[in-house]
Amino acid sequence: MQLYGYWRSLATFRVRIALNLKGLPYEETMVNLPKGEQFLAEYKAVNPQSVLPALIDGDGAPLFQSMAILEYLDETHPQPPLLPKAPRDRARVRALALIVAADAHPLVIPRIRNYLNKQYGVEEKTAEDWCRHWIGRACEALEANLASDRRTGKFCHGDAPTLADICLTSHIAGANLFKVDLAPYPTCKRIFDTCLAIEAFAKAHPLKQPGAPASV
Amino acid sequence: MQLYGYWRSLATFRVRIALNLKGLPYEETMVNLPKGEQFLAEYKAVNPQSVLPALIDGDGAPLFQSMAILEYLDETHPQPPLLPKAPRDRARVRALALIVAADAHPLVIPRIRNYLNKQYGVEEKTAEDWCRHWIGRACEALEANLASDRRTGKFCHGDAPTLADICLTSHIAGANLFKVDLAPYPTCKRIFDTCLAIEAFAKAHPLKQPGAPASV
Repeated sequence: MQLYGYWRSLATFRVRIALNLKGLPYEETMVNLPKGEQFLAEYKAVNPQSVLPALIDGDGAPLFQSMAILEYLDETHPQPPLLPKAPRDRARVRALALIVAADAHPLVIPRIRNYLNKQYGVEEKTAEDWCRHWIGRACEALEANLASDRRTGKFCHGDAPTLADICLTSHIAGANLFKVDLAPYPTCKRIFDTCLAIEAFAKAHPLKQPGAPASV
Repeated sequence: MQLYGYWRSLATFRVRIALNLKGLPYEETMVNLPKGEQFLAEYKAVNPQSVLPALIDGDGAPLFQSMAILEYLDETHPQPPLLPKAPRDRARVRALALIVAADAHPLVIPRIRNYLNKQYGVEEKTAEDWCRHWIGRACEALEANLASDRRTGKFCHGDAPTLADICLTSHIAGANLFKVDLAPYPTCKRIFDTCLAIEAFAKAHPLKQPGAPASV
């Protein structure tokens, strides 16, 4: 499979984790977001929306949107499963994942910060406060659910990693990039540490990818 | 089933459509967002995140996040299906849905506009430009895909409504609330009109709910 990503892209991080958990080999083409390579014709032919990630698997149309790609990988390569079996449990796992993928992540990506700067004169430092605010709100929502629901186990839901753990890991990695204080979210932090002890998660981390700095 | 929503909530609109398509009876409790009823203890007991919608189905934990609820309804009440059968087609439908539910909608909800106003002094009128901008970006992404992929039919994917049509309908209804010019997005407009000709979609519309104004 051919993955299109970028070291810092948290949505690409999610797809890398799933590919690793499923044991699927892939090659990654880095699309340099700060250089604007997502707007070049070469990438637009893969994903006209100019956003990451995209995945090419065989001859069909490229796949896009990280959550749709994760569900596709789980349907086409069911072992190990990324969703529990019972519909209500699947709904909880998907809902936790969406707190990250819908409520938080779309607010903190570069195009939003660029728009805040261009339209309202919001400086880089102030835009980082914006990011920290929305990342924190999602951490609160995750923590409230994880700490109060008895279905939480070693991972977000039970004792095996699911879509929710993939998203939580990308979210807390993002929180670290923006230096969010994790002390109020001990369950999130515990599960993040548990996930990163697994090679499939650890080797997918943004700072382990080609082009990444040694630290941020 | 017990649905918690509000007339203007576009995410609740999606769940109403799915319940109607599946022929499932429900009662809706209106949570008045402008009055802040989502922050009252009564609703926080249902969804501690204080966002809409939530769905109570039987004795288990309340369901939250509209996309997770839609998948749950499709798994528990498979007819008529809201997803096609082949994994690659399911991925396309989910990705189109997520352009709305992840890339666009979380940017235009009241809490974002409130934050823009409080932190950066962005006035209501300017905040509406913000909403129009991000709604338009998602319309562009939808239109590019729908107009170029031969799997587009009477609906977003083939000739029966799917999750993608539910999300597209909520998105274009939102575009209308914010008075976005739809002329550049003829395929989106065509599918929106096709959906609203179906009673399950039409009677779920924000302006048909208790408490809604006659027009906006």
